[in-house]
Amino acid sequence: MGKDVSKKALALHKKFGGKIRIVPAAPIKNREDLALVYTPGVGAVSSFVAKNPKKAREYTMKGRTIAVVSDGSSVLGLGNIGALGALPVMEGKAALFKTFADLDAVPIVLDTQDPNEIVETVVRIAPGFGGINLEDIAAPQCFEIEKRLIERLDIPVMHDDQHGTAIVVLAGLINAMKVVKKDLNKSWVTVSGVGAAGVAIMRLVKRYAPGAQVLAVDSVGVIWSGRKDLNSVKRALIDEGVIFAHGHGGLRDALVQSDVFLGVSKPGVLTANMVKAMHPNPVIFAMANPVPEIMPSEAKKGGAKVIATGRSDFPNQVNNSLVFPGVFRGALDNKVRKITDEMKLKAAKALAGLISKPTPEKILPDMFDTRVARAVAKVIR
Amino acid sequence: MGKDVSKKALALHKKFGGKIRIVPAAPIKNREDLALVYTPGVGAVSSFVAKNPKKAREYTMKGRTIAVVSDGSSVLGLGNIGALGALPVMEGKAALFKTFADLDAVPIVLDTQDPNEIVETVVRIAPGFGGINLEDIAAPQCFEIEKRLIERLDIPVMHDDQHGTAIVVLAGLINAMKVVKKDLNKSWVTVSGVGAAGVAIMRLVKRYAPGAQVLAVDSVGVIWSGRKDLNSVKRALIDEGVIFAHGHGGLRDALVQSDVFLGVSKPGVLTANMVKAMHPNPVIFAMANPVPEIMPSEAKKGGAKVIATGRSDFPNQVNNSLVFPGVFRGALDNKVRKITDEMKLKAAKALAGLISKPTPEKILPDMFDTRVARAVAKVIR
Repeated sequence: MGKDVSKKALALHKKFGGKIRIVPAAPIKNREDLALVYTPGVGAVSSFVAKNPKKAREYTMKGRTIAVVSDGSSVLGLGNIGALGALPVMEGKAALFKTFADLDAVPIVLDTQDPNEIVETVVRIAPGFGGINLEDIAAPQCFEIEKRLIERLDIPVMHDDQHGTAIVVLAGLINAMKVVKKDLNKSWVTVSGVGAAGVAIMRLVKRYAPGAQVLAVDSVGVIWSGRKDLNSVKRALIDEGVIFAHGHGGLRDALVQSDVFLGVSKPGVLTANMVKAMHPNPVIFAMANPVPEIMPSEAKKGGAKVIATGRSDFPNQVNNSLVFPGVFRGALDNKVRKITDEMKLKAAKALAGLISKPTPEKILPDMFDTRVARAVAKVIR
Repeated sequence: MGKDVSKKALALHKKFGGKIRIVPAAPIKNREDLALVYTPGVGAVSSFVAKNPKKAREYTMKGRTIAVVSDGSSVLGLGNIGALGALPVMEGKAALFKTFADLDAVPIVLDTQDPNEIVETVVRIAPGFGGINLEDIAAPQCFEIEKRLIERLDIPVMHDDQHGTAIVVLAGLINAMKVVKKDLNKSWVTVSGVGAAGVAIMRLVKRYAPGAQVLAVDSVGVIWSGRKDLNSVKRALIDEGVIFAHGHGGLRDALVQSDVFLGVSKPGVLTANMVKAMHPNPVIFAMANPVPEIMPSEAKKGGAKVIATGRSDFPNQVNNSLVFPGVFRGALDNKVRKITDEMKLKAAKALAGLISKPTPEKILPDMFDTRVARAVAKVIR
């Protein structure tokens, strides 16, 4: 892939001028249509909705539309490339919302990376939307921004890089543990990368399997209580008992005592030798994009039993698209104001449950499996 | 109409759950499609656009998408009914953008009516949009908000209640004067209503016909230099010589010396007797919605030669839909950063020019006349 896909993607984006279209729900062909959709008929709808704000979900776009909001501070693996750089990703996401969950989604890219300004801006544009999908916002600001928006708004808010990722990773992990016949509650899990995704993954895994021991490795090394360089988010992982904070050293040291590697970090940080040093039948999720922490062929050389990546050209693609459409579909259908941890656990289990007999090459359903969004939506209540 | 249209409009809005849909520009049917629209292919597009921001117009939605922004402070004739009340109107507008100009438009309704907050919010969400259509924002704040956004942004910003209305009124007036065989440059024009629309109409009419004498009448009476209650916007109309500020009294007094009545005010302020007292062959634009300043039958009794309203059930409907789709289509096609007064004049002339032989019942083209948006778009350059 690589060059060829890039070329084709650029050509497609130029051909269509972006990836979404905003069209009338019903065609407007004559004055009679116009009189209902616009003046004078719309006046009755405006009055009605103003007087009965809860009815906005039925009579306006609010009941079916999600804002996909980014400040462009952490776009894919590209880093802080700003609002315009983030726009193609948000448009893609909007296209997927429609494709997988028949939801309408509006890309909103922000000309600010200040957390206060982001929060205020989203609060002010929120009335027309039924939910807010935060996207590609860097850690640690993403945690505060999401938390404050959840407090301020009466519609569901989810930072997909955190929770969408955590849900799909946990779903895959549930099935991977079946394949290797291990109990997650008695396993050691090393998470490489302590950004938005890493933190959410650790918290959800620990919530699902309180007996699991989670080791967190950032760019400095294993996170442990003696380190002086930890931000408040990493410190909280220790204080709240999410991670095992007594080890030290680097990724290599953490893996020696691990059954599972969950990578949301950087290309190439994992080697076949490091996999070899892990507990027997190791599970490797190398999800750095587009180049994983270790290529599947190398992981196999190291003895990995189940291998997942973020890529579509290898088996076991771990992709948020399995989660976010269903989560918001469920939240809107079931009038959920807050996506709780309980719901996230249920979503992971529902997703895992779609694979009746997990195998090393099949721990997650296909994105085009039409059961996916429905199964996830059903448990968001 | 009335009740029947209201009922039907409510039913339609409920049936469809609002009036717009956001769909993929190209269908996403399989992993190959997905790899181009989303990861990994989208990464190349994001990098490219981040490095070449001017190319965003070609490769993203920015080149074809307008934000339709309202704070709900002055919705139709309903007044300050807030963000949710405004939403159906903004959705209708988005549907018309697509129908009449093949542009994509996103309704954004704001949970603030503070001018500073509105300006900051629009600036921050602007990167993804090619233009900003301000809508249903009350005077006098609308003037300041529009001015500051034009200064701050490098994309076209237009408050449609002001300029869309002014352009279509001037277009109709140009043809009405042909019907009554009068020279606008030697005529007296009374404008009833000195809000967003009234102010813009006066300025554009005076710009088109500097010899015209314009009388402005607000809820207190004729605006003249001795009045102590004028806000800065009304004061500026005097200081800049837009209006004839030596008369006084009320609407009745102004009309005695007028050839034209342009009403953007309130139902019923005009009577057949007042029309009778005007100069011979008066032109009456009674555009209050949905109930005009005078019903056409009454205006005719008073001797009106040309009568226009905002309604579709009478001849000569004066409706912004004749203008805003073409203005933004032209601005995007021709890469216009600022909609100038010159462009507005040209747009009014282009619109008027579509009627080769104006008659008392035909001074403006039909909204479904496919020439309209194209003719307007052509001169926005």
